[in-house]
Amino acid sequence: MNLPVGYEYSSAYAGLRKTPTDDLALIVSTQVASAAALFTQNLVQAAPVRLARKHLQASRGRVRAILINAGNANCATRTADRAALATVRAVARLGRWPVRHVLPCSTGVIGVELDPNLILAALPQLFERLSPARFADAAKAILTTDTVPKMASGEVPLRDGVVRIAGFTKGSGMIAPHLATTLGFVLTDAALTPTQLQPMLRRAADRSYNRLSVDGDTSTNDTLVLMANGASGVAPNEKERKVFEEVLCWVLEDLAEKIARDGEGARKCVTIHVTGTRHNEDAHKIARAIATSPLVKTALAGSDPNWGRILCAAGYSGARFLPEAVTIKLQGTVVCQRGQAAEFDEAAVKRALDAADIQIRFIAGKGPGECQFWTCDLTEGYIRINGSYRT
Amino acid sequence: MNLPVGYEYSSAYAGLRKTPTDDLALIVSTQVASAAALFTQNLVQAAPVRLARKHLQASRGRVRAILINAGNANCATRTADRAALATVRAVARLGRWPVRHVLPCSTGVIGVELDPNLILAALPQLFERLSPARFADAAKAILTTDTVPKMASGEVPLRDGVVRIAGFTKGSGMIAPHLATTLGFVLTDAALTPTQLQPMLRRAADRSYNRLSVDGDTSTNDTLVLMANGASGVAPNEKERKVFEEVLCWVLEDLAEKIARDGEGARKCVTIHVTGTRHNEDAHKIARAIATSPLVKTALAGSDPNWGRILCAAGYSGARFLPEAVTIKLQGTVVCQRGQAAEFDEAAVKRALDAADIQIRFIAGKGPGECQFWTCDLTEGYIRINGSYRT
Repeated sequence: MNLPVGYEYSSAYAGLRKTPTDDLALIVSTQVASAAALFTQNLVQAAPVRLARKHLQASRGRVRAILINAGNANCATRTADRAALATVRAVARLGRWPVRHVLPCSTGVIGVELDPNLILAALPQLFERLSPARFADAAKAILTTDTVPKMASGEVPLRDGVVRIAGFTKGSGMIAPHLATTLGFVLTDAALTPTQLQPMLRRAADRSYNRLSVDGDTSTNDTLVLMANGASGVAPNEKERKVFEEVLCWVLEDLAEKIARDGEGARKCVTIHVTGTRHNEDAHKIARAIATSPLVKTALAGSDPNWGRILCAAGYSGARFLPEAVTIKLQGTVVCQRGQAAEFDEAAVKRALDAADIQIRFIAGKGPGECQFWTCDLTEGYIRINGSYRT
Repeated sequence: MNLPVGYEYSSAYAGLRKTPTDDLALIVSTQVASAAALFTQNLVQAAPVRLARKHLQASRGRVRAILINAGNANCATRTADRAALATVRAVARLGRWPVRHVLPCSTGVIGVELDPNLILAALPQLFERLSPARFADAAKAILTTDTVPKMASGEVPLRDGVVRIAGFTKGSGMIAPHLATTLGFVLTDAALTPTQLQPMLRRAADRSYNRLSVDGDTSTNDTLVLMANGASGVAPNEKERKVFEEVLCWVLEDLAEKIARDGEGARKCVTIHVTGTRHNEDAHKIARAIATSPLVKTALAGSDPNWGRILCAAGYSGARFLPEAVTIKLQGTVVCQRGQAAEFDEAAVKRALDAADIQIRFIAGKGPGECQFWTCDLTEGYIRINGSYRT
């Protein structure tokens, strides 16, 4: 993984989670970076979301550092705003940066007071450990119920040199992004302005993070930040920015897929590909309905080729299509044709569904609409994890 | 349970399900009855839904008999329409009724060919067994993954005498009605016209079946039929029809609550009461989001007073409210006040959440909007049932 130049990372244990694994991460750009961000569309927004949005406005999209904590969402408590402000102020003081150049991000349980002193006490160590080599440590520190860190990277060869993109993210429950999700941090050393970054991030997220669902729950803390510090010295021209955006999209897709693969309790990563609808919006509706149907997801957990549930979910998705024109494929095998049961070797498809990667193809007709979507199966593990998340 | 007069019921085993318990039910009115019905809003509609709708139109809301089978949804197969027609034709022939006075209803797996000969062979026995006393047998025969039959009844004392209402229904997965759900049959001996019945049924369903969710999946076969045969000889006047509608609503609420209580894998029946929104629609959005959130439902399964997930679900419901005005009560205890953590005895609330009946109160503010909604907890049992439904 070739990381973008001009960034340092760090992690430390502040004591926000009970198990003594790092719960605090810091990303620092060695020079002020352009930034774009997407935040949760939930009406209930955590204090760090509100403060990060405010800082980005005040700085007109300039960021120096991002402070991230796991173990507490810093949301819906009396002191949430004060706690968020106290921690970014302390980071700004230690780094000698304007406060508005520091963004806070939190993830964890909602409604439990976050003691800022725990974070303040850990900050000196966090700064000491800053290093370009601690990318993976930071990626690990932001995890909650995730079982593996989630990182992705890409390179874009341009006329004036190579620029690099790298990101890390976390899952793995309360995942059903609307325009942004979870926590995700994507960094590049390309030279791009905040005005260039924001539409790129939005379009790339629409093709990745917004096509992902673990459980249909959109969290209060979803944040996706893209930083561009220009440390490569390469500023993509208009045509090159298209190529850059394409690679950015791959990196985000890679991260999104890793979230689905590590969904709470998940044993299978499910890719749903809907085609043939009137337009992309209808394809998106169908894909999302299939991806969030507990009946589809439990059938997949049990390797049951129960395509009726897929057709049924599409039917209540709100999209318009002709049921009698639908073809459904599971792992490449046609199981439903013209909206009816197709003849297929059930035992063989059942075996194929035991795989860790499941492909669902839903061909709605002959329209131009298309959407790819990621989800996971729904297992007893999800119940176990979420029945006792706080205990 | 005082049943309405002038109805007979029956059940038999046609061999549609593997276990040899009755899978066929028949409801017959001794005289032609007025009828109203609500059907699934799913774009994919089973053959019996299409045929029942057609018959009701052709007969202008007159019904003599309803034939119901469990074990097969008769949906999305090559022969579904022919199978549905063949069975109601045979019923009409045996009963010497017009075909359009017979409605078919099916529930079970989607996409598996239904062999009408299995049903045709069982019809003579089904007719032989017809009796006013076999109400409970019919209620039992229509069940799928349900663990108990679901029946409810009520009486309405009117000036000219008493009229009776009784109904039975089935759950217990693929439950997220939009205007109608599952299979439900409600019978009365009041004398009412189809034109009087339809708006009553719609309003009563909006307050009962449409406020129920087990898993957020709206099935292809949802049907709710209300029959009024007038056998009591009592025709409610305009004022009395309001009273009748109120009792009808109680019966439907009773049935809806029983579906929630017996939700697949459910150990707890959850009543969500949202108040204080701008209007009822917003209250309904919030209640539905809470009722369908897997994170809320798994927390309840684990007796975890994780109110943050409730606030979060309300936040992404699409309803408008001020998070900082929200009060949330669990089992009567305030756990969130002014949108923030309230001080409460966590161990005591945890113990209270071990009960089989859970009350969630969500007070959004001071608006007039209000909605009551039923759901169940999400347990490992749901996963087990639905991972192997067809095997």
